[in-house]
Amino acid sequence: MTDTPEKKPRSHGRIAVSASLKPRELMTNTPRIAGTWTAKVITLFPGAFPGVLGESLTGKALKDGGWALEPIDLRIFGEGKHRNVDDTPAGGGAGMVLRADILGRAIDMAQRGVPKDRAKWPIVYMSPRGKPMDQATARRFADCAGMTILCGRFEGVDERVLEEYDIEEVSLGDFVLTGGEIAAQAMLDATVRLLPGVLGNEASTEEESFSAGLLEHPQYTRPAEWRGRTIPDVLTSGHHGKVAEWRREMSEKFTRERRPDLWENLSRDQDEN
Amino acid sequence: MTDTPEKKPRSHGRIAVSASLKPRELMTNTPRIAGTWTAKVITLFPGAFPGVLGESLTGKALKDGGWALEPIDLRIFGEGKHRNVDDTPAGGGAGMVLRADILGRAIDMAQRGVPKDRAKWPIVYMSPRGKPMDQATARRFADCAGMTILCGRFEGVDERVLEEYDIEEVSLGDFVLTGGEIAAQAMLDATVRLLPGVLGNEASTEEESFSAGLLEHPQYTRPAEWRGRTIPDVLTSGHHGKVAEWRREMSEKFTRERRPDLWENLSRDQDEN
Repeated sequence: MTDTPEKKPRSHGRIAVSASLKPRELMTNTPRIAGTWTAKVITLFPGAFPGVLGESLTGKALKDGGWALEPIDLRIFGEGKHRNVDDTPAGGGAGMVLRADILGRAIDMAQRGVPKDRAKWPIVYMSPRGKPMDQATARRFADCAGMTILCGRFEGVDERVLEEYDIEEVSLGDFVLTGGEIAAQAMLDATVRLLPGVLGNEASTEEESFSAGLLEHPQYTRPAEWRGRTIPDVLTSGHHGKVAEWRREMSEKFTRERRPDLWENLSRDQDEN
Repeated sequence: MTDTPEKKPRSHGRIAVSASLKPRELMTNTPRIAGTWTAKVITLFPGAFPGVLGESLTGKALKDGGWALEPIDLRIFGEGKHRNVDDTPAGGGAGMVLRADILGRAIDMAQRGVPKDRAKWPIVYMSPRGKPMDQATARRFADCAGMTILCGRFEGVDERVLEEYDIEEVSLGDFVLTGGEIAAQAMLDATVRLLPGVLGNEASTEEESFSAGLLEHPQYTRPAEWRGRTIPDVLTSGHHGKVAEWRREMSEKFTRERRPDLWENLSRDQDEN
C-alpha cells in the first residue's frame, strides 16, 4: 500500500512482527492475477475457507489461479481486549447483532481497489430475508469482476450497514443457518463453476438442471444389471435420437411431478415466445 | 462387531495394521453415545467434514456429544487399482455417473445398526431434482434418530440406487453445485441447531425467520448514530409493546415486499384457521 521499501528486521531468531489493520491473506498459495475473478469473504471463521471449495475442480481452479479467494477476518476489526464485534439488539430480545461500525471497517478494507459499481462487484449478505439464490443469480455473479460476501452470525447485522453500502441480500432457501459461511460456500460453488475453464468439460454445464429450466433426467451406468434392476433398453439401443427423446420426456415428467412451480414458469415462458 | 476379544499386537514399534472394509472414524474426538443424533455422510471428500460445522455452536455441540458425525469415504468401496467409483453414462453424454453397486456397498455399511424405518432414519441424496429444503424439513430431520446423507459428484448417481434404498432427494435450491458436500453441510447446519441443547438460548430459534412464516425484522445495535444514520426511535423508547408491534409490522412489510409467495401462503393458512 506504500512505496517505502520495507526495512530488513534486525532480529534473526523469529519472523518480524508488525502491527497492521490489513489481515494477512490466508490463501498464500493462490496466485493473485490482475483480472482474476475474486471473492472476498468477511467472516468470523476465515479458517473455514476454502473448505469444500478447495477440493475437486473448484479447488484445482483456485490453485491454478482460475479464481481467487480472500477471507477477511472480521475479528481483527473488533474493539477492546476481546475484539468485540457485536452487541445486544436495540429494543431488547435474544442474541447479538453484528455492529455497523465494525462491519463498516471490514467492508472498507475489502472494497479497496475494487470496482465501485455494484453491477461489476456486488456486496452480498447471506440472509434468509434475501432473494432466493438461483442459477440466474450464479450466472450474474460469474459475469462480475468479483464480489464481496458478508457472512452473518448470531441475530444478524445492523440494518444500517446494509443500507449504507447498498448490500444485496441473497437467501440460500427458506431455512435458518447458524451463520452465513456455508451459504457463502454454496453460492460460491454455484458461481465459480460457471467461470471459464473451471469445469473441464464445457458441455457438462449446459446439459444440467435449470439450464433448460427442467430437472435432470435419470442417469445409469454399469453394471447393466444390479440387484435385479436393469438399465432402460432405450439407453443401450445405440439410437441417439431415441436416447435424447427419452431423456427429454423424463426431464419433463420429473419436472411436472416434482416441481409444478418450475413447470408452470416454463409453460408461461413458452407461451410468451 | 464381534464378541471375540482383540489380540494384543506383538509388535511394539508401530500401531497394528489390520485390513478392514470399515473406514476408521475421522472424528475420533467425538464421544459416541447411544441415542445421540448421528449424521453419516457418504462422500468422496470425507476430509471436508465437519468443515464449518466444526466451528461455533454446532462445533461445540459436536465436541460435547450433542450430535455425532461419521463421514464415510466412498473411495474405499471403489474397484481396481484406482478404486474407481464411477463410469460413463448409459446412452452417452458428458461426465461420469456414480455406480449403483459401489454406492450400494457404502450404504449397506452406513445402515448397519441403524433403524430400518426411513421415518426414523432417512437416507437423503442432495440433488437439484429433490424437494426444496425448508425449515419444516429441518425440523422433521431433527426429530429422527439420525440420517444418512449421500453426496453426489459429477453427473449424479445411478437412478437404481435411489429406487433400491427408497432414498429421499432434497434440493438446496434451483442452482447447480459441483457436489453434494456443501449442500449436506447446509442441511446439517439447519437441522443440528434444532437439536435440544445445541443453541445456548432456546428463545433464539423461536424468534427467527420462518418459525412464524415471516422474514425477520431489521436489527440495530450500538452505536446509536453511525455515519449520520440513527436507530429508529421506537427501539430506544423502552416501550416493550411498541417495540414488539414495530417489529411485527416490519416483518410483515419485508415479507410482502420481498417474498409475495410466502405472504400468500401465510394469508391462506390464516383464512383456513
